[in-house]
Amino acid sequence: MSAESLDDRPPLDDRPPGGLAIGVDIGGSKAAAGVVDAAGRVLDRLQRPTPQMDAADTEDVIAELVLELAGRHDVSAVGVGAAGWVAADRARVLFAPHLAWRDEPLRDALRARLDLPVWVENDANAAAWAEHRFGAARGAAVALCVTLGTGIGGGMVLGGELFRGAFGVAGEWGHLRVVPGGRRCACGNRGCWEQYASGRALARDARELAENSPVAARRMIELAGQFGALQGTHVTAAALEGDGAALDLVTEMGEWLGQGIAGLAAILDPDVVVVGGGVSELGELLLAPARARYAAVLTGRGFRPELTVRVAELGAAAGLVGAADLARLETLG
Amino acid sequence: MSAESLDDRPPLDDRPPGGLAIGVDIGGSKAAAGVVDAAGRVLDRLQRPTPQMDAADTEDVIAELVLELAGRHDVSAVGVGAAGWVAADRARVLFAPHLAWRDEPLRDALRARLDLPVWVENDANAAAWAEHRFGAARGAAVALCVTLGTGIGGGMVLGGELFRGAFGVAGEWGHLRVVPGGRRCACGNRGCWEQYASGRALARDARELAENSPVAARRMIELAGQFGALQGTHVTAAALEGDGAALDLVTEMGEWLGQGIAGLAAILDPDVVVVGGGVSELGELLLAPARARYAAVLTGRGFRPELTVRVAELGAAAGLVGAADLARLETLG
Repeated sequence: MSAESLDDRPPLDDRPPGGLAIGVDIGGSKAAAGVVDAAGRVLDRLQRPTPQMDAADTEDVIAELVLELAGRHDVSAVGVGAAGWVAADRARVLFAPHLAWRDEPLRDALRARLDLPVWVENDANAAAWAEHRFGAARGAAVALCVTLGTGIGGGMVLGGELFRGAFGVAGEWGHLRVVPGGRRCACGNRGCWEQYASGRALARDARELAENSPVAARRMIELAGQFGALQGTHVTAAALEGDGAALDLVTEMGEWLGQGIAGLAAILDPDVVVVGGGVSELGELLLAPARARYAAVLTGRGFRPELTVRVAELGAAAGLVGAADLARLETLG
Repeated sequence: MSAESLDDRPPLDDRPPGGLAIGVDIGGSKAAAGVVDAAGRVLDRLQRPTPQMDAADTEDVIAELVLELAGRHDVSAVGVGAAGWVAADRARVLFAPHLAWRDEPLRDALRARLDLPVWVENDANAAAWAEHRFGAARGAAVALCVTLGTGIGGGMVLGGELFRGAFGVAGEWGHLRVVPGGRRCACGNRGCWEQYASGRALARDARELAENSPVAARRMIELAGQFGALQGTHVTAAALEGDGAALDLVTEMGEWLGQGIAGLAAILDPDVVVVGGGVSELGELLLAPARARYAAVLTGRGFRPELTVRVAELGAAAGLVGAADLARLETLG
């Protein structure tokens, strides 16, 4: 969260009412929880590793985090942003590719343990809501968020409301097929967008380069310590240093990002697209090629107003801030 | 429009108030106009060829059609569904690939001539609205319409409201790129979905077959009279007769249709997808392979409720019925 984005916000006295809520963000590797006020500020924060293999263990971690924070603050609701597909009733996690949830009644299980109102939301939806309320998508009529992590998380706020689709699972645009017969995806299909634009895609590209041209990839391999340890973060770090090979990989990924955004624009006609997630630390190194590709391939270019592509403002806190805010608003009614 | 679909509608006495409106549907080749009542029934109807080269001539045709119908019926509003991109203010046509409009202030020009409230809408949006109000998408929470004509027209009704996007041009999913470097599209890009699933795509496939295997394509060439005249309608006719080669082409197009619907489902999570346009006369010949492909490639299949794919019910009248209904509701306030 930048100081600048905090300065844009309404002052403390203008805050809407509603007190504090706890937001929990359950990702594939870690669980973060925070106490969030009505202006989207994180007042207190905790983090734990996420148990990946057992749904009951994950529930224990959430309960521990919430009870510890609730002991220190007077909170009125709990929002859980989960890296999975949340049913339209916002009670059950239908499926989570990186966690053990399979049609898990998470909301009711947590309510029984916590004695607080609990709402479950998809983590990328929660992040999109946070950017709409407090971040880069404020004031947008049609805001799409593309969160570049291990894969692509998607969320959208249409006319001021979080759009969840008919069954709760809208915004899974990381699994739009962009290349017939393309790279294999964790979802079981081939050629999904997130196989060409994500932290994992960047790592895959870098390893392919390192294997075929270790000299070109030297700096990235140095940063990783060894070839096998090469991850997206090493590419990002090398690109930020100005390493040519890493910049090429980032540019190529930016082009895939821009191509995908042009596709989303053909379907949803957004005015703002927010790019978040770890890879978005690359800033203009990633967004400049994305904008260039978008502008070159947008259908109807020249005859339509064009959208704005922005980097997310809330950083890693977006998921828990959005989950807390949604729970607070829901509990207020 | 099937007799069955008419039977599903509320009886005459239950009709909402609001009197009659005129709907005009301006396509690339013809202009149709009709007097539509509050139950979506077309009471009177006219048709003319559309002048393609001159915007003033098109305006003249619209005015003639409306004035003739308004002389015979007591109408309160006029809705124009135009095969072009309509700005968010629903007054201007930004661009029309098959007509002469370029940032054309169509609504105000018509209002000045007609002395009636006029609203302009994208033709595929109008058709989607008609299917939501009176046809195959009744009761859907998230309804997407895919109209297979020369290209693909798209429209969506989300939570009971027509969704137009931030600038008025949402739903142009015919121009989603499905094949990198693929077939060239009228929009200037390559690999757009409508180049693989539309009347024009079917004609292109048939001509390619006829060129390489005239024996296989014999029946389609017979129906066309000569090779050069082979159009999508001839493929459709041959397929309905049971011609094997035509059925193969239709099956392949159905697979592209289903693949695209799976992509839309990943993004928008609809409960109903309505397939309309001339090609939809193929019914299950087209929809069965579409459903099979959709079911095979839907991301998260098995862990999410699945949508229903239906053939449109309002046929060629959908555009004018929807345009009239939107204008009537807008004028009522």
